Amino acid sequence: MVAQSGGPTVAINASLAGVISGVTKSGQYDTVYGSINGILGILHDNIMNLSELVKKQPDALSTLTHTPAMYLGSCRFKLPDFLDDDSAYIYIFQQFEALNIKAFFYIGGNDSMDTVLKLSNYAKKIGSDIRIIGIPKTIDNDLMETDHTPGFGSAAKYIASSILEIAHDTFIYAVKSVTIVEIMGRDAGWLTAASALARNEYSTAPHLIYLPEVAFDKDAFLRDVKELLETTNNVIVAISEGIHDADGNYISASESSTDTFGHSQLSGAGKCLEYMIKENIHVKVRSVEVNVLQRCASHLSSKTDLDESFLLGEKAVACAEEGLTASMVTLKRTSNTPYQVSYGHARIESIANEAKSVPTEWISEAGNDIREPLLDYLRPLIQGEVPVTYKNGLPMYMNVSHLSNSKPLN
Amino acid sequence: MVAQSGGPTVAINASLAGVISGVTKSGQYDTVYGSINGILGILHDNIMNLSELVKKQPDALSTLTHTPAMYLGSCRFKLPDFLDDDSAYIYIFQQFEALNIKAFFYIGGNDSMDTVLKLSNYAKKIGSDIRIIGIPKTIDNDLMETDHTPGFGSAAKYIASSILEIAHDTFIYAVKSVTIVEIMGRDAGWLTAASALARNEYSTAPHLIYLPEVAFDKDAFLRDVKELLETTNNVIVAISEGIHDADGNYISASESSTDTFGHSQLSGAGKCLEYMIKENIHVKVRSVEVNVLQRCASHLSSKTDLDESFLLGEKAVACAEEGLTASMVTLKRTSNTPYQVSYGHARIESIANEAKSVPTEWISEAGNDIREPLLDYLRPLIQGEVPVTYKNGLPMYMNVSHLSNSKPLN
Repeated sequence: MVAQSGGPTVAINASLAGVISGVTKSGQYDTVYGSINGILGILHDNIMNLSELVKKQPDALSTLTHTPAMYLGSCRFKLPDFLDDDSAYIYIFQQFEALNIKAFFYIGGNDSMDTVLKLSNYAKKIGSDIRIIGIPKTIDNDLMETDHTPGFGSAAKYIASSILEIAHDTFIYAVKSVTIVEIMGRDAGWLTAASALARNEYSTAPHLIYLPEVAFDKDAFLRDVKELLETTNNVIVAISEGIHDADGNYISASESSTDTFGHSQLSGAGKCLEYMIKENIHVKVRSVEVNVLQRCASHLSSKTDLDESFLLGEKAVACAEEGLTASMVTLKRTSNTPYQVSYGHARIESIANEAKSVPTEWISEAGNDIREPLLDYLRPLIQGEVPVTYKNGLPMYMNVSHLSNSKPLN
Repeated sequence: MVAQSGGPTVAINASLAGVISGVTKSGQYDTVYGSINGILGILHDNIMNLSELVKKQPDALSTLTHTPAMYLGSCRFKLPDFLDDDSAYIYIFQQFEALNIKAFFYIGGNDSMDTVLKLSNYAKKIGSDIRIIGIPKTIDNDLMETDHTPGFGSAAKYIASSILEIAHDTFIYAVKSVTIVEIMGRDAGWLTAASALARNEYSTAPHLIYLPEVAFDKDAFLRDVKELLETTNNVIVAISEGIHDADGNYISASESSTDTFGHSQLSGAGKCLEYMIKENIHVKVRSVEVNVLQRCASHLSSKTDLDESFLLGEKAVACAEEGLTASMVTLKRTSNTPYQVSYGHARIESIANEAKSVPTEWISEAGNDIREPLLDYLRPLIQGEVPVTYKNGLPMYMNVSHLSNSKPLN
């Protein structure tokens, strides 16, 4: 049984394809089931036979690998502690038994690894030999014990390409301007750091980079921008959505609308910095909130990322066959030039509910840029392009009508 | 002499490449100069020799064709009426004479065609035989006398692909939700209409489409959304940034921030509709403002669009050779299946300062969707993909360092 959970990435279906491929090649397993909407599919009897799907649709594995978001849908559901309430656990393991499930693979981020940990602990308690294995994915790249996470490389490639294209868009007017680009990442700045990959022989954008790992100082920010504007027409600033001040307060503008709506709305860090510039430096200013495409633009994914994600799916199946449980499969970088990784695994206790930040030594002293070793770490992850199949001018993805038919759970 | 003006598109450099190619093939012209930052380059002696560039860099034409925004930079500059003040005109035509310029090509949208008109009239008045020809470009697709405009097809492809990817992103949660996608287009809804191309056999998104051509009715909108939510989990709504009510007021929420900044800020139509849903329908809601990438994402451009843009550039040079002036080159659709266009021209008086809206008969009676004939019109324009050259994981575009070195004009 396999399921997906948490937020979308471009690579999470590649890992799903890897699991299906692993089971197809397996000497121990003959069928792989998918649970729709994460662990909730098991609880709500919403399960599909993925082995049959692949038999009926021979190109399914390839199309799946290139389809964004979750083919099996997702959930944001935290299992209760089974010492408080074990009813969900009892039902889940009954379902496993009914379908003769021998291994359960959960593809997700930090929260999903919490589910892997809880299910592993419960399996141990009841003496079940069902293997429980996590497969990492998150554009945030903040999982412990793995060099990087599937989904991150493609998001990083999208961010760097977008910053480069925004630079071209910005450079055309010979007027002083500031462009703030807000990038996903509430607690970790990995994805925002990837904006630095956009720099090339003719563009030094982004000129400033602010991560949540460093306390944001408004005065220093305004000073940095003013100084840059003395020599540069168009200043581009990359910021994480999660930047905060020294007291830990998010940089955001609380706004009350003055029209008929009346509710107070929280606007993001990008808008907030845009207002700061407007108030204090009188130049043209724009903020760009890079939208959900940074996590679902399969039309611009990293081949390195998709390849690794697929292989991690296969690796998880191989690990289960070898008897491993209570673990997450991992990537270990064995060489940077040439870039090489090995596929391993780590105990789930050291991963679940932990988060990996950008190390201080990879951030500039002034806290407004990243350092060369971080670029060396990032660069291999965005390499390679994936040929997208187009039909009628649009990318061709897997049919996900089974999701829109899902009974609403709220 | 050639220059570019107005807002960026993915195709405007393809037309520039077409002009350079046309001059290279020409029996009458030997050199093409580029004016940096539109007409302002001529006024500020900021001119480059494009023929030399192409000689030095043999792949320049191809790279240029695939580079977003304006290689020559842009401006937002309206020439005064020469009856009021002819000093700029005198200087421009002196420059033309000094460089032995025989034709001037201006690639741009409505405002740029105003410049073409004024220069044409002035040339006539002083008896100059310099040809003045406009080459259309705008993602808004709102120029008269041409079936469609360069830049629109690629933007339409980007919008349709993005809506499809946003649909995949949205479908993953089995909870009721509304996603508002705000698309560029203040006066014309062509680009927002292109969102309908995202519909396929498994996704009916966008479920509602609102264009500036129809007065927006808040009550009808909320009724439409509520009705859809009865049968659909995840409702996706595409709106033009320029939607307005029956009195012509833009749909936007004027907000005063309650923190230290204190200024009143205008938030867009997307945010405004997001607030409407929050207030009136208690489901998860998100608004996505498709950012500047919709006009500069060369990594996802339409081959049809780039090919036509290039050929229009060549056509403009051919027209000048034939003695044409005071005109804009145009596309005429001669057949829809198979899609075929012919390249022509039209008098600039009937184009400058006019705008083409989406015809009422192509919009649904309820004003919340488009009709089949509009889809038939749009579909051919997004066909075909353009192979992007990548270097170190990023798209390779033309070096535009000459723009960042431009002296600021403000």
